[in-house]
Amino acid sequence: MSENAVQLVVVGSIGIDTIETPFDRRESILGGSASYACATSALFTDVGMVGVVGADFLAEYEALYAQFGINLTGLQKKDGETFRWSGVYKDNMDDRDTLSTELNVLAEFSPTLPAAYRKAPYVFLANIGPDLQQHVIDQIEKPEFVAMDTMDLWINIQRDALIKVIGQVDLLTLNESEARRLSGEHFLPRAAECLLEMGPRYVLIKKGEHGSMLFSKEGIFVLPAFPLNRVVDPTGAGDAFAGGFMGALAAMREVDQDRIRSAMVNGSVVASFAVEAFGLDRLKTLTRDEIDTRAHAFREMMRVPEALTPA
Amino acid sequence: MSENAVQLVVVGSIGIDTIETPFDRRESILGGSASYACATSALFTDVGMVGVVGADFLAEYEALYAQFGINLTGLQKKDGETFRWSGVYKDNMDDRDTLSTELNVLAEFSPTLPAAYRKAPYVFLANIGPDLQQHVIDQIEKPEFVAMDTMDLWINIQRDALIKVIGQVDLLTLNESEARRLSGEHFLPRAAECLLEMGPRYVLIKKGEHGSMLFSKEGIFVLPAFPLNRVVDPTGAGDAFAGGFMGALAAMREVDQDRIRSAMVNGSVVASFAVEAFGLDRLKTLTRDEIDTRAHAFREMMRVPEALTPA
Repeated sequence: MSENAVQLVVVGSIGIDTIETPFDRRESILGGSASYACATSALFTDVGMVGVVGADFLAEYEALYAQFGINLTGLQKKDGETFRWSGVYKDNMDDRDTLSTELNVLAEFSPTLPAAYRKAPYVFLANIGPDLQQHVIDQIEKPEFVAMDTMDLWINIQRDALIKVIGQVDLLTLNESEARRLSGEHFLPRAAECLLEMGPRYVLIKKGEHGSMLFSKEGIFVLPAFPLNRVVDPTGAGDAFAGGFMGALAAMREVDQDRIRSAMVNGSVVASFAVEAFGLDRLKTLTRDEIDTRAHAFREMMRVPEALTPA
Repeated sequence: MSENAVQLVVVGSIGIDTIETPFDRRESILGGSASYACATSALFTDVGMVGVVGADFLAEYEALYAQFGINLTGLQKKDGETFRWSGVYKDNMDDRDTLSTELNVLAEFSPTLPAAYRKAPYVFLANIGPDLQQHVIDQIEKPEFVAMDTMDLWINIQRDALIKVIGQVDLLTLNESEARRLSGEHFLPRAAECLLEMGPRYVLIKKGEHGSMLFSKEGIFVLPAFPLNRVVDPTGAGDAFAGGFMGALAAMREVDQDRIRSAMVNGSVVASFAVEAFGLDRLKTLTRDEIDTRAHAFREMMRVPEALTPA
């Protein structure tokens, strides 16, 4: 565990996942939005995790968190079982069915921030109920930059609470279909305009294999995804993207359009590694050198030459 | 009609389309792959059209071609009716159903190149049967760069003839699902590798609202799409992209990675205009100034800042 001051606080779910793809299957592996977001952000900065696990949470999972360098002061251990999720990916991993969701200890979770986390300048509210996200915002003293993720479930069943949280953050990230659902607009620039009116300075729409888009008063940034030859497990790709993004941004210690764009490149590259293996497996061995090498190749793939005037 | 030597020859279908979207409907408007590809490429270079129309083809359609500056020496007029297509777009224009296809004079079409076209350095074989594309290749004397498009129909019913044509061109363009179908590979880098083995130096995969990708031995170029606030009629968007691309490339009079990338930006911008109105309506008034202004904005949207080293 890192001894440095916590630069980024991440709250989210910690889960034990059972995942089936057309090619393979893994039972009871470590997952959840906080696990992916912390494992990736910790590659760039000092991260403190806020989450809850049950008595069944294996010592090896905690050891893995520590190996990533995640500060675990904010990890609560409760009687009962850890949140569990299982799902099946279809065909080419484009769609998935959820087979079961057991909230377990997550149902009663109240995220309490350790004193050392309350002065953290960067906060990432990964996907978890908006009431819990709100509770974290209420405890942070003077954050410089707060970002949040969400999912269709909260848009459907806790819309008002969700919109209230959105009104208090600097950046909202969500996927394409969630942006459409929350805004009621199909075309993304219009959807983003509607979401920006809810309060955040930035709206970052994740499009999976099609990349991501950043919207703000300063304009639009469109980022393709790093092209992949195969995907082993897409679970947590969005959380890995957001975690890599927030970790890189927090490490830059200042937020502006160029730093956000640069952090998005890092997030995209980290997510492209995350899906190469099940769960956190690929992230375990991922190095900053590997990230930088792929980011360099990715930048060359996106290089748009100066406008060449046709003769 | 332009008096200059033909720099780019385009062969493809000329059709009369009836198009219905969730918001509007147009009956008997000018369409077809050659119409879109010529109207867009003529914005950049001197284009000669090769196609066939029937006795029902209105004088105003021909006047419109001439207004675009298209050389029409290669336009054949036959007894009978012009090729007709009608289709309905669903919901958010993401899918469409074809209601009817009447080949009419297209069924007996044999594209004969006027002498003035045979020395053209650039050739674009827009979407039309592979036997007709082959016939054009056979008549061109010493082309510098030949590109071709295709569609799922030919992949399904004339696969061998199609693959033979692919083996003779410099660049193959097709959409995402066609690339997957023709190669049998889901992930696009693998699909492109397989298609490159068929002979072309470049494979350009069109992903519609998600942009496009260029594959070659030199590596991958990923280009997002210009973000749109609305789409009135997506018909011909891929042909407009390819036409704008080939027109810009032909105008540069030299082909290399940077020129292809730059031409793809032009193609993408031109396609983003094309879908703003039905048929060729938006292209009628489109100017190079409008293209350059949007291309400039698009480049800023794609600008990836220098890698910022996290502190």
